[in-house]
This record gives sequence, structure tokens and C-alpha cells, in this order.
Amino acid sequence: MSKLKSALSGLGRRTAEPPISWLMKIALDRPKLISLAAGFTDNPSLPVEQTREILDRILGCSKRGPSALQYGTGAGDALLRELTVERLRGQDNAPAGSVAHDAGRLVITHGSQQFLYMVGEALFDSGDIVLVEDPTYFVYLGIAQSRGMQCRGVRMESDGIDVAHLGETLERLKQSGELSRVKALYLVSYHQNPTGTTTSLAKKAAALKLLAEYERAAGHPIYLMEDAAYRELRFAGDDPASALTLPGAEERVIYSGTYSKPFATGIRVGFGLAPKEVFAVTMRIKGNHDFGTSNLPQQILREAIDSGLYEDHVQTLRKRYGRKAKAMLGALEKHCAGLAEWATPCGGLNVWARFPRKTPTGLKSRMFEETLNRDVLYVPGQLCYADDPSRRKPNREMRLSFGAASEARIREGIRRLGEAARATQNGR
Amino acid sequence: MSKLKSALSGLGRRTAEPPISWLMKIALDRPKLISLAAGFTDNPSLPVEQTREILDRILGCSKRGPSALQYGTGAGDALLRELTVERLRGQDNAPAGSVAHDAGRLVITHGSQQFLYMVGEALFDSGDIVLVEDPTYFVYLGIAQSRGMQCRGVRMESDGIDVAHLGETLERLKQSGELSRVKALYLVSYHQNPTGTTTSLAKKAAALKLLAEYERAAGHPIYLMEDAAYRELRFAGDDPASALTLPGAEERVIYSGTYSKPFATGIRVGFGLAPKEVFAVTMRIKGNHDFGTSNLPQQILREAIDSGLYEDHVQTLRKRYGRKAKAMLGALEKHCAGLAEWATPCGGLNVWARFPRKTPTGLKSRMFEETLNRDVLYVPGQLCYADDPSRRKPNREMRLSFGAASEARIREGIRRLGEAARATQNGR
Repeated sequence: MSKLKSALSGLGRRTAEPPISWLMKIALDRPKLISLAAGFTDNPSLPVEQTREILDRILGCSKRGPSALQYGTGAGDALLRELTVERLRGQDNAPAGSVAHDAGRLVITHGSQQFLYMVGEALFDSGDIVLVEDPTYFVYLGIAQSRGMQCRGVRMESDGIDVAHLGETLERLKQSGELSRVKALYLVSYHQNPTGTTTSLAKKAAALKLLAEYERAAGHPIYLMEDAAYRELRFAGDDPASALTLPGAEERVIYSGTYSKPFATGIRVGFGLAPKEVFAVTMRIKGNHDFGTSNLPQQILREAIDSGLYEDHVQTLRKRYGRKAKAMLGALEKHCAGLAEWATPCGGLNVWARFPRKTPTGLKSRMFEETLNRDVLYVPGQLCYADDPSRRKPNREMRLSFGAASEARIREGIRRLGEAARATQNGR
Repeated sequence: MSKLKSALSGLGRRTAEPPISWLMKIALDRPKLISLAAGFTDNPSLPVEQTREILDRILGCSKRGPSALQYGTGAGDALLRELTVERLRGQDNAPAGSVAHDAGRLVITHGSQQFLYMVGEALFDSGDIVLVEDPTYFVYLGIAQSRGMQCRGVRMESDGIDVAHLGETLERLKQSGELSRVKALYLVSYHQNPTGTTTSLAKKAAALKLLAEYERAAGHPIYLMEDAAYRELRFAGDDPASALTLPGAEERVIYSGTYSKPFATGIRVGFGLAPKEVFAVTMRIKGNHDFGTSNLPQQILREAIDSGLYEDHVQTLRKRYGRKAKAMLGALEKHCAGLAEWATPCGGLNVWARFPRKTPTGLKSRMFEETLNRDVLYVPGQLCYADDPSRRKPNREMRLSFGAASEARIREGIRRLGEAARATQNGR
């Protein structure tokens, strides 16, 4: 037996243990830990009573009850799809006839993650290239690695990617003959995970235009994938329209969103919209994954949105995350002024902090150790950078999440973080 | 724009519209249709009141409520995993210490379909071979096609695959130098979809032994994948132990099951167990798909099983499907005696019928047309056969489902089916 090789596929071999799982194990081993790393959402504000009421309504109805417990359809509940595009049109200030916002190109998924995964399957062969923000959502990097995709990072500015750098990157790929492998640009466009950056509509328009200019040389469409997972969690600033409002969006923009974070993460309901061909293939892939999203969770969201409960809850949640962000930013000001820099997010669940040259933040750094010794955990910024051979990964940043911890623990966590940074910078 | 090629991946190009979706479209266009094709389960027996009661209990509890609405873990709820292996051990009459039945190698998924899909990703590269029953579950054939897998059909007998034919097939693959591409044998072992056949433990043992004998020549493990999706829906006969009870199972048996069909198809909760390496990789793939199964549906099943409600419901369901099967078999006896042959299933949702040579049943056959003209739909047997170049696909069979339709409509549907068969055979 021992002489046998593994039977794993290429994908099976490539699919690596995500670095984040190591962080999660650390958290499990230390029950007193203040985790500023977890992507969990705020527990006390979960809509328990509302969900109970909604379920009573659905299951108490002789018609809706049984149908909520029966298989749904592959694309998802028709009314939920309609409510979702209505809501999107509202946010985007788009007309009722907007083709890009049509329910016929929307699929309900088990979280928006599943949609991103399936689009990855539909578009990328091993060796193909996706352009990503630098830094970007680390789970997406894991999906890319698993599929054998290569990533190229596009530098970030305060209002989204550096369009000039996107142009340079495309030009470089053209020169090196790799453009035919470039399938998409992936943007986490609202309150980005990890940096909190929101991409302006102007930048999305410029990016879409640039991609179109390189399509002829690529020989095929290059899609703009807009991941709007944090769009609902805005507590300040504007809500720029999505790329779905741009000319030609119906041919080139793939958009994903989720109800899990703004409603309840224990109910995984996300959605995605895509141009015709990509949508058709994604639907077939969805059929192979699971025939369609679990129906009862969809019915909960449908009823929540239809009754207005969802909107009320989102408003409450925004205020709550606004307060938690304020607690974190206040604590950073108090305990970390002069030790680090950070950006003020207008939404989402994270603050992105940058330390001076003498304070690397990686998993094996003194800073990480000093912080962990004080029972505080953060996500090292390095984990959010793609393996892009054209630049070194920055190593002095960290993602600090204010989603899960209470305000008191956020303050205490940041106080200890400041202590750890001082200990590190002074060499103690 | 028009000169651009498609940007789809190999998988994207290969993933075909499943033939069954055409059947579903037919059903939608004919509201009066009696569908004996739908894989839906019985609507009136869905546990609406029980689910309402369970949810009241969960969401009414100050501790369990919020935790049910928060993210769970990648592998699934710990107690649900424990309850699942306990139940499996009971069904298999396995000791508490059985390694093959350990909760540590079990993952909760969005239906067992998702598990099958992920195992496909973990094991099969394009061009790899899976051995399947001939006929088999047609959705699995779609997954295989999408992943570029090749299928080889193993003939069926009344108690499962023809082991001699499995041996011949393996030998043939060895001779042709293709054995290194063979990764697994896929069996739908209880009340198989489509034929209703249950595989005896002796046959599973013989198959596992045969696979082991060819591993050295293959150079890697060849897994036995046991899909037990219909195991709970037994209304007569025995429940042979699963392949997990066989010697060496912990190294080679991959087992999947589901709670969706025996409880509620609108709550997609399935599970799978796998040997160490396959399990580890499948868990990472699961992380990339969706981080873990929706938590609230898991909590519903956990509470249902823990409280005994699930067991009660399964007992009710078995009686109900037993009655529906009886209605179908009685109607076949009455209206189709002499026109066709069929096997008497001991569980599941389907009767498999075989017609004489002059009555092909395919989508373009006279029989299909005559049946549809009478507003009745069946699944042509041909759709359940893999594209195996080594034999012609039989074309005189059909899958008749008694899951969704009422007893009265089952009887009427079969009456019309007999009429259609007579019209076809007499050339009218």
C-alpha cells in the first residue's frame, strides 16, 4: 500500500490549507483571546426575534409552509430574485428597464462566495490570469490558487485601484504575450476587505474602458467582476453606483452581493448577476453543485425584504457597526498614535493599519508574537496580497476587524496592540 | 466585438445543459401534466408543523438563537456530526470505536450532491475514469461530463453490480493502459436512482476487494464511493450494512448521505465521510465553495434528530412512500401487464420499467410522444446511461417516479402510460 501514490487531482493537490485556518486554530486554543481577526459579524444584533416571527408567518401558512420546505428552482426563488434586482436598481438609481439589472440574469447562491467560486470555474483554466486589488480578499486568493489561476495585483489608492497601474499591468501582459490568459479584473468595490476602500464609479468606468481596449489583443472578453459583499454595511459616506450602471455593463460586468452579512451569517443567501453566456454556464455549474440554493433560507430573506424587516435591520446594523468602528478608531487614536497609520472606513467590518518599516506584522514577526502574547489576534496584511512575481509583498500592515468583538473588547484589544507595537519598536 | 472568442474555461465549455432541464421545461409548459419524471418528494407529508416547532425552540432560546444565526464551522455543527455518525453506526450495527464511522471524517454539506461534486474536484482530472452503475444517477453523469471525466458502465443485477463484469472492465482498462486514470467506483447503493436496486453487502465487499487488487497496477488508491441518498426511504426488505463496515473501509470508502429527502428538500443538509487525505482536501475545497454549510438549516436537523422528531417523521414517510409505490405497482399490473416489465422496489422514489424491442422510450420516440400527448411525463432510461464507448445505450427503459404525484394521479398517469404503450406497439 505504501508504494501507491496519491489519487488526488491537480486541483486536489493545489488546494492548500488557507493561512487563515491557522489563525482560527490559535483562536480556539485561547478562549480569552480578543480576536480582531475573525470575519464574524456582531452577535448581539442578530435578528433572532425577527427571524422567528418570519418563520412563524411562513410555516403557519398552509400554502407557503409546504412550498418553503420543498425543492426550489436552480436560479432561486422568483420573487426573491425580483426583490433583489429592485433593491439593486434603487441603490444604483437605475431605470426599471435596465438590462444589466434584470432578474433573468440573477442567481441566488449559498453566499456570494459560492457565486465567485462558480464564476471561477466558468472562466478560468489553470494558468489563466485574474487581476486583483493589491491587497485583496484573501479567500479569493485561495480559490485562485486552488484553480491554478495566476494573480496580478493592481495598486490601490484611496478611491479604488490605481487606473494608471491597471493600464501598465495590461500593457505589460500584452508585451509578454500573456494577455490571452487574462479573463477578469476582480474588485471588492464597497468598503473593501481588507482595506475598507470604496471604489468610485469613475474608477470603475475607467477600468471597464481599459479592459475593453485590451480585449482585441486578448482575443476574448475581459470581465469586470464586482464583489459588493460589504455594500449594505455602510455607516458613512456615499454609496457610489455599481458597475452595472456603466455602458456595456450587461455584456461585461459580473456582480455579486450577499444577504448573509447584512441579515444573518447563519443563513447563507447570496446572489450574482452575469452576462448571458457566463450566466448560462454558471447556472449549469450550480445545477451540478446543488441544483439550487436551500429554499427555506431563501424564503426567510424574501419575507424579510418584502415585509420591510430587512431594511429596518440593515439600518440598525449600520448604526451598530458605525459605533464599533468609532470605538476602534478612537482606541487607535488613543493607543497607537505615532505608532501606525490607518484609514477611516465608511463601512464594512475592518480597519487597515500600516506600521513603520521597523515593525513587520507577519505570522513570524516580533509584532505578531507580542500581540498574541497579550491575547490579541489580527490578520497579517501579507496574507491579503497575491503571489505576484512582479513585486514584493508588503509586510507592515494588518487587518483589524470590529465586526465580532464588543466595543469594550475592541478598546482593550487596541490598547494591548499599542503596547505590543511599543514593545516591538523599542526592542523592549 | 463580434470577432472575439468566448472567454469560457474548459470546464465552462464542457458543462452541458442537462437533458433533464428540457423535461422540466416541458412540465412548466403543461400545467395539467402528470409528471412521473420529477424527482420532487411528497408535498403533503413535509414536516411543516414540526419545523415550526423546532424553530420556535431554537430561536426562542437566548443562547441557541443567536448562535444558530451566526456562521458555523467548515465541517459543520459538532453535535449534528456526532448525531449523524451515531445514527450511521446504528444502521450499520457498527461498534462505537469504528474508525470508518468517526465524526472527525464527516463534513456537513449543502445536500449530498455538493459532497459528490467536491469529491469529484478532489480526485478527478480531465480524462480520468470513474466506474459507474449501468444505468446510474443522471446528475452524476452531468458532473462527470463537466469535469471532463470518462465513465465506464458496470452491468447491474438484482442485488447490485455484476461483480464479474466489474472485474472484466478493470482488466480491460489494465490491458489498454488506462488503469492509472481510474480513480473510483461510484455506487448508488440503496434503492438506486433510477432502478430501485439495493446493493448487497457481499457485492460491496467483492467490489472493494477487486478494486484493491488493481491498485498496484493503477499506482494509486481506487476508491469505492457509496452514495446512500435513498437509504432512509426504505419501506420493505432489508437495510444491508454500508461499505463503511468492510475491512479497510477507513482507507478506501467514501460515503455520502442526505437529510434533505427524508426530512425536507427545502432544507438542503447532506453529509459525507471520506478517508483522511480525501477528507482533508474536500474540507479545503468546501472552504473555497462557501466556508461551511448554512448554519440555521443544520440547527433544524440537529434539533429534529436530537428530539426524535426526525425518526418519527422518517417512519411516517416510509409508510407513505410504501403506499405510493404500491399504487404505482398496482396500476402497472392493471394497465401495463404484458406491455412492459418492471422491478418491485423496496424503497426510494422510483420504479424502473423495461419495454419490448418495438417500444423505444427515448426523447424522440413514438412512445415518448404518445405519453406526452396524454399529458404524462417520464424520464427516458437512456438519460441514465453513461457515454461508454464499449456498449450501446439501452433505449427501451424508463424511470417512473412516485415521489411527487398523489396516489390518484399516479394511477391515472400509469393508466395513460399503458394507453400510450398500446398505441405505440399497435402502431395505432
